[in-house]
Amino acid sequence: MAGRPLPGSRRTYLPGPDGPGGALRVPMREVPLSTGESVVLYDTSGPYTDPDIVIDVRRGLAAQRLPWIEARGDTVELDATRRAATDPPVGGPAGPESGPAGPVSPARREPRPSPVPRGPRRRALPGRAVTQLAYARRGEVTREMEFVALREGLAPEFVRDEIAAGRAVLPANVNHPESEPMAIGRNLLVKINANIGNSAVSSSIEDEVEKMVWATRWGADTVMDLSTGRDIHTTREWVLRNSPVPVGTVPIYQALEKAGGRAEDLSWELYRDTVIEQAEQGVDYMTVHAGVLLRYVPMTANRRTGIVSRGGSILAAWCLAHHEENFLYTHFAELCELLRAYDVTFSLGDGLRPGSIADANDAAQLAELATLGELTRIAWEHDVQVMIEGPGHVPMHKIKENVDLQRELCHDAPFYTLGPLTTDIAPGYDHITSAIGAAMIGWYGTAMLCYVTPKEHLGLPDRDDVKAGVIAYKIAAHAADLAKGHPGAQAWDDALSAARFDFRWTDQFNLALDPETAQAFHDETLPAAPAKSAHFCSMCGPHFCSMKITHDVRRYADEHGLGSTEALEAGLRAKSAEFTASGSRLYLPLANAPATPDPRPAT
Amino acid sequence: MAGRPLPGSRRTYLPGPDGPGGALRVPMREVPLSTGESVVLYDTSGPYTDPDIVIDVRRGLAAQRLPWIEARGDTVELDATRRAATDPPVGGPAGPESGPAGPVSPARREPRPSPVPRGPRRRALPGRAVTQLAYARRGEVTREMEFVALREGLAPEFVRDEIAAGRAVLPANVNHPESEPMAIGRNLLVKINANIGNSAVSSSIEDEVEKMVWATRWGADTVMDLSTGRDIHTTREWVLRNSPVPVGTVPIYQALEKAGGRAEDLSWELYRDTVIEQAEQGVDYMTVHAGVLLRYVPMTANRRTGIVSRGGSILAAWCLAHHEENFLYTHFAELCELLRAYDVTFSLGDGLRPGSIADANDAAQLAELATLGELTRIAWEHDVQVMIEGPGHVPMHKIKENVDLQRELCHDAPFYTLGPLTTDIAPGYDHITSAIGAAMIGWYGTAMLCYVTPKEHLGLPDRDDVKAGVIAYKIAAHAADLAKGHPGAQAWDDALSAARFDFRWTDQFNLALDPETAQAFHDETLPAAPAKSAHFCSMCGPHFCSMKITHDVRRYADEHGLGSTEALEAGLRAKSAEFTASGSRLYLPLANAPATPDPRPAT
Repeated sequence: MAGRPLPGSRRTYLPGPDGPGGALRVPMREVPLSTGESVVLYDTSGPYTDPDIVIDVRRGLAAQRLPWIEARGDTVELDATRRAATDPPVGGPAGPESGPAGPVSPARREPRPSPVPRGPRRRALPGRAVTQLAYARRGEVTREMEFVALREGLAPEFVRDEIAAGRAVLPANVNHPESEPMAIGRNLLVKINANIGNSAVSSSIEDEVEKMVWATRWGADTVMDLSTGRDIHTTREWVLRNSPVPVGTVPIYQALEKAGGRAEDLSWELYRDTVIEQAEQGVDYMTVHAGVLLRYVPMTANRRTGIVSRGGSILAAWCLAHHEENFLYTHFAELCELLRAYDVTFSLGDGLRPGSIADANDAAQLAELATLGELTRIAWEHDVQVMIEGPGHVPMHKIKENVDLQRELCHDAPFYTLGPLTTDIAPGYDHITSAIGAAMIGWYGTAMLCYVTPKEHLGLPDRDDVKAGVIAYKIAAHAADLAKGHPGAQAWDDALSAARFDFRWTDQFNLALDPETAQAFHDETLPAAPAKSAHFCSMCGPHFCSMKITHDVRRYADEHGLGSTEALEAGLRAKSAEFTASGSRLYLPLANAPATPDPRPAT
Repeated sequence: MAGRPLPGSRRTYLPGPDGPGGALRVPMREVPLSTGESVVLYDTSGPYTDPDIVIDVRRGLAAQRLPWIEARGDTVELDATRRAATDPPVGGPAGPESGPAGPVSPARREPRPSPVPRGPRRRALPGRAVTQLAYARRGEVTREMEFVALREGLAPEFVRDEIAAGRAVLPANVNHPESEPMAIGRNLLVKINANIGNSAVSSSIEDEVEKMVWATRWGADTVMDLSTGRDIHTTREWVLRNSPVPVGTVPIYQALEKAGGRAEDLSWELYRDTVIEQAEQGVDYMTVHAGVLLRYVPMTANRRTGIVSRGGSILAAWCLAHHEENFLYTHFAELCELLRAYDVTFSLGDGLRPGSIADANDAAQLAELATLGELTRIAWEHDVQVMIEGPGHVPMHKIKENVDLQRELCHDAPFYTLGPLTTDIAPGYDHITSAIGAAMIGWYGTAMLCYVTPKEHLGLPDRDDVKAGVIAYKIAAHAADLAKGHPGAQAWDDALSAARFDFRWTDQFNLALDPETAQAFHDETLPAAPAKSAHFCSMCGPHFCSMKITHDVRRYADEHGLGSTEALEAGLRAKSAEFTASGSRLYLPLANAPATPDPRPAT
């Protein structure tokens, strides 16, 4: 599927400030309608849906942001000969801060080759902050901000203000120039993340790259590579070089691999070097569980489901083993210095998030949240962008409290939540149990929603699960945009509903979030091509379709300037006569029936 | 599938006031756990999941309520020789009020035979009200109310109070003695309805009976037979005789068939005779669009999607054709007299509900809602039970307003809504767009949720679509019960989460809303039987599963009476030493690792 636009859609580009020929252009999905109009939609699929662009995954995508980064003149190229990282030896390119490579992972075998290298990696000139936050605070509207403003239909200054205030982040590592800029914040469109990544039990590099392309085709705004098995470094390189969206990771996973799976063998140095390795590869945001403090760990003892965050449990284990404070907390300032040198955005992890309805909004979770608020201040002092991760499992009546507390404790830093699942009873359907919570938490102000697939709690998502999760979360995110009254959000709904009302079946399919499924479902009941122009609904058939009446009412009201109770009497008798003369039929032969569906079998 | 209990579940019965041997016993789904405990859940599947009961659809289910109805001595048997209704001639058994049979439907062919007749049908003795509302108001706790109280874990008097106040309905036609009593109200568990029914374009009698059994297997609390094609009467007879749940209909559909599809040929007499025919068959509740008033029709003229209710458009057509007020409104009192003679519950239809986000909560919808409130008062004066139907398509921020208005305008009569869909952009996934709205509106106080299937707007639901719709709505209803703090609702979530935490995989599958899908998904990633006792999560594999640490923390806290920050210092050093001595491994060989999953690939 990847490489072709969605059925009935075509790639279009919004011109930037330099005009159509300029360097900056924003890709969008255009849906031409049978009426001659067209609808232009936000598009996360990157070059893969532009038929004019030839994709070679071995070479990776074009580095469109490179000239913008170079033009800023605040980064330096790293010595290319140092780019020798692979699996193993892990630890990768030894930067000045780099320590010895860790032990070989037990899961070792021959690593896959990386794609053709992107050339030298960069980092900030000594002492410089190369973050979008630093630029925004200085009043600079970067190319990335211009791109985001066009993409969201907002003023560039508004985007800059949101980033400068810390209410929005624009994850854009200087070493991921292939990415198409996007921003995450409560005053922007709600975004969604799709998790990919292999594990010791399953999947390959090719699978993960394909999953990334597949997830962005259906609407993933970012992807997180959560690989924990073999070839972590190489898998990440393939994903980054081919990803049009920001890529996030959880460095503690790779660090633990380097420590042979022994939490007690983790160290700040080992973790730091892993962060450098990943920052030089181009990871745009990193989950850091710096809020799992030693004194919070016992608060989880009486929980129904204890600690369910992988990162959280790793750090809790380290704290207990050493009886020391979490090294991510004690070295947080150093970590900030590192991230600001590449513009890696913090995603402060909720290592103590609830893993069940019973544990929602408990003391452990809220204590950690307060600490994440402290850390947010410190990151901002270092000009590093920050977002805050959230739960998890939360019943509907506790969702708003969660968002309100996060906003207050974390000073309006963007909230990035997993679901939340609103019940625990439906394993196999957690894309639905969580889409309910995701839509609500998005409405309440959450900036990005991490998807959950139908395989949640049960197994590793395959291609179909990834699509099911992304679609469910696009629904949640868009429902939230509608409820927030985001400018322009409802135009999509209105265009689709108008097509439905007018029986423009093909327009309805093409405007759908998933045109293929919409048409396939219609074909199942009414396969014949003529049905695509049928003036009746497949639910009811030609005999029973409600409706011509609606058009009768409308036409009549138009003709007589009606549409109000007051004006009714004036012409209703005439209408009555006309309707009777017409045979008063609720339906007409297909040939000449202008009609509207009753799509619903309900009453 | 029908006829067998769900995997890992068994049928159990709660004894009634007369004890285990008594006539009244309430069927429940019992899930035995590997711990020796068991969880008992509400069960809508009827005799079809009791292996001790032999089902013969040609004979129908046992008439368990018949002795209760006869014992009340307020009904009279109708002359069996009058039971000649079939398709055609339609119009059915001519009661005293009966008029001539209508014309033959254009879609005619040989009718199917009905199942073995249930014997004579009943109606109230002249002047008697045989409704649960009348009994409740007189202070009588009926057998049906006792059944509901046991089923919901409530006091019989509480159930009686809710029904007497009109806050709950107990749909139980005297001619549907096969039904297992259930009640619908904001202070009871949230219920769901599944629509079935053939149409001119598709499906057969066998399909509809099978769909009914299938829908109740997965949790449908009621079904509506919305047949509009051939054999309407016979299909309904088969469904009723075999349905353990209340059956609802929309009589105007059959009336229009009798009128040859010509709305102007509809009349009160034709409609009345159809209601009698269906009431004598045993229909438990009927959708009546008596709120579609002549003066409201032009209010729909400027809508994005006009009138999308089939019933609403039929009556709007009639009003315009005759330039007269809706005959259901002008004859409403007569209709009340009819329904109270069989205890048919009103489901006052929202014929002017919005068909798109753009039309939500508009003047036409709210004007009709106010009229439904008036009609509620009239029905109550006649001792007839009433619920109110609601939309449809509503963005999240307008849902609560909708419920609050319904409650105020309709005097706390139970609200019964279709979804609502929270966005229009996802045809093919409207079970999800609407499960979001359904969960929220249920939390806000809606008593029953009418399901939406993935085929909504596109085609007729097949078996898989019916299951997908029912499961999505059981999720929404249970999430609402949790958010409302319904007593006992969370016990199910807690039991499943405890099983997950303890790696009791089979218990987790068996407790799931859909055990088959839960186990199938786990099998896909870890098919081997040993994996069902594996102390790791298939997401992460044995190497990476987060875990033992949570049990370490818990065991330690138990041993030392910890679990609070204060008590931590006392023993943490000892803990540190112990943990280090144990090798500080985050995982153990499967054999001896008590562990907790990190089911989630997320951070």
